[in-house]
Amino acid sequence: MKKLINDPFDMVEEMVEGYVAANDHIIKRVGKRSIARANSPIQGKVGIVVGGGSGHLPAFAGYVGKGMADGAAFGNVFASPPAKPVIEATLAVNGGAGVMYTYGNYQGDCINFDKAQDKCREMGIKVQTVVLNDDVLSAPKDQAHKRRGIGGLFLVWHVAGAKAEQMASLDEVVAVTNKANANTRTVGVGLTSCIVPANGKPTFSLADDEIEIGLGIHGEPGIKRVKIRPIDSVIDEIMDAILADLDYKGSDVALLVNGLGGTPAEELYVVYRRVKQICDANKINIKFKHVGNQVTALEMQGTSVSLLRLDSEMHDLIKNTTVDTCMYKKV
Amino acid sequence: MKKLINDPFDMVEEMVEGYVAANDHIIKRVGKRSIARANSPIQGKVGIVVGGGSGHLPAFAGYVGKGMADGAAFGNVFASPPAKPVIEATLAVNGGAGVMYTYGNYQGDCINFDKAQDKCREMGIKVQTVVLNDDVLSAPKDQAHKRRGIGGLFLVWHVAGAKAEQMASLDEVVAVTNKANANTRTVGVGLTSCIVPANGKPTFSLADDEIEIGLGIHGEPGIKRVKIRPIDSVIDEIMDAILADLDYKGSDVALLVNGLGGTPAEELYVVYRRVKQICDANKINIKFKHVGNQVTALEMQGTSVSLLRLDSEMHDLIKNTTVDTCMYKKV
Repeated sequence: MKKLINDPFDMVEEMVEGYVAANDHIIKRVGKRSIARANSPIQGKVGIVVGGGSGHLPAFAGYVGKGMADGAAFGNVFASPPAKPVIEATLAVNGGAGVMYTYGNYQGDCINFDKAQDKCREMGIKVQTVVLNDDVLSAPKDQAHKRRGIGGLFLVWHVAGAKAEQMASLDEVVAVTNKANANTRTVGVGLTSCIVPANGKPTFSLADDEIEIGLGIHGEPGIKRVKIRPIDSVIDEIMDAILADLDYKGSDVALLVNGLGGTPAEELYVVYRRVKQICDANKINIKFKHVGNQVTALEMQGTSVSLLRLDSEMHDLIKNTTVDTCMYKKV
Repeated sequence: MKKLINDPFDMVEEMVEGYVAANDHIIKRVGKRSIARANSPIQGKVGIVVGGGSGHLPAFAGYVGKGMADGAAFGNVFASPPAKPVIEATLAVNGGAGVMYTYGNYQGDCINFDKAQDKCREMGIKVQTVVLNDDVLSAPKDQAHKRRGIGGLFLVWHVAGAKAEQMASLDEVVAVTNKANANTRTVGVGLTSCIVPANGKPTFSLADDEIEIGLGIHGEPGIKRVKIRPIDSVIDEIMDAILADLDYKGSDVALLVNGLGGTPAEELYVVYRRVKQICDANKINIKFKHVGNQVTALEMQGTSVSLLRLDSEMHDLIKNTTVDTCMYKKV
């Protein structure tokens, strides 16, 4: 295992220490594994708390800042944060208008965020939750509630964060976040595995000439392993799966071409080229786009494509918002 | 070779096509391998043209936009662009106040940018060049002019771009860019090799338990290969080399912890943690900082640390500028 770390078991602790120091103009630490915007709580604004396992930066802590999230809880690598840091973040960002939790659909995160929600409600804080499930290939359409949350969160949180910045009510922020989630689909492809530091060896293995369509961001199995082939035909398959699941034809969309962490940026632009061709052919109008590493899986190589179908409310929110977070800025 | 590409020999062409489409709100294409800010030329503003081989994104094309560069030329992977795209970019950004070329010190880049400079001067355009050489370990101090340019360009170009945005003269922009370069030092460490698509196999090899201090961004040999060890002790060695080459003690600095492309963001924050401790111990005041992939080497794993010693002019420039480029935004 070759990593820029000390003792693997100190990695998250030391990462959080460095993260907080590097972003001290935007955030403050509010617990051992929890952060909040430096100016939290903002009176009258709904606080958005995100989180999940480490190993996915910029997701999730990278989005704490203006226009996206107000607080975040760090878990161990690929493991949910316990309830405690979620509660700490909640208390730090609660400005009286309530708090929304939003995270990807994983059992550990659901259990721990729900625990935190119960505790915070007992303390009299209004908390609501929106669990994200954009990963098309992780469950069939008639069991969409079982789907995982992956790269689509980057798009959904633009909408959610923008609404909260407008000082909308908790019910309104929750409603538009649910709407954004319902209109978001993602499909990914993994080329390589990755090494969780505390394990010291690859999470799974893929042959030298094999790639996996639908691979999850913790190494969860995809729908099939295929031989490596020209990326255009892989993207065709990915876009077919997305377009078969939701009708994007003729719609306005927000789009993310996401890198899984270990893939050069150059390759993501080769991917974007094909995605754009397919969108053009289907009269899908790209109103917002981003190409880059957003929801990663350590040093895994691969990509995912996310589309969010925009109505006029979401279009206005995502186009007009200012986002200035720890690891991502939209101007 | 596992990459998100089609024919390896089409990779740069397809990447540029995707890049231009993804950034059409900021740039325009002005040749097969050349781009310029969408609003170029800006009358009365010095145009800054950058470039170099592909495989280093966001360097170099990623910095075209407000506050950094006005134009860029793309080369093949790890190969200089020819003079032609440099000339195209020059013509596109020339707003009458002259054009500055700035790039890392590599033989191919020097030859081709000089050719372009000669041609453009013949056409009556004022062109000056600042070649960057921040890589401490690539040549001894008494042969510093032979040193390569690596991650430090990210810091130097903040200063250069800010000065040009203030509508300073070509001589003034060149002077402050030279000053920034003279005050910038970088040292890196590589953990793994990378694969140039057209070659199809790793550029060099490092044993499973070996890392290389001073490794170049195209695989140029560093000063030594050592066994993998805790990152704190590697960063201590890197910072010792930087601080031995230029006196940063008690100074204000701008700082970059750079990822080489294939390293997870989490690890870069573990690196930042140690860099910050060393700066604190040496009373080095970090006035500007960034942690992320900026000057990469395809999927290579590793990091580099760059420090720019700021005087009051450079401090004002880097703190107060707005940067909004294709792949990097400072707010």
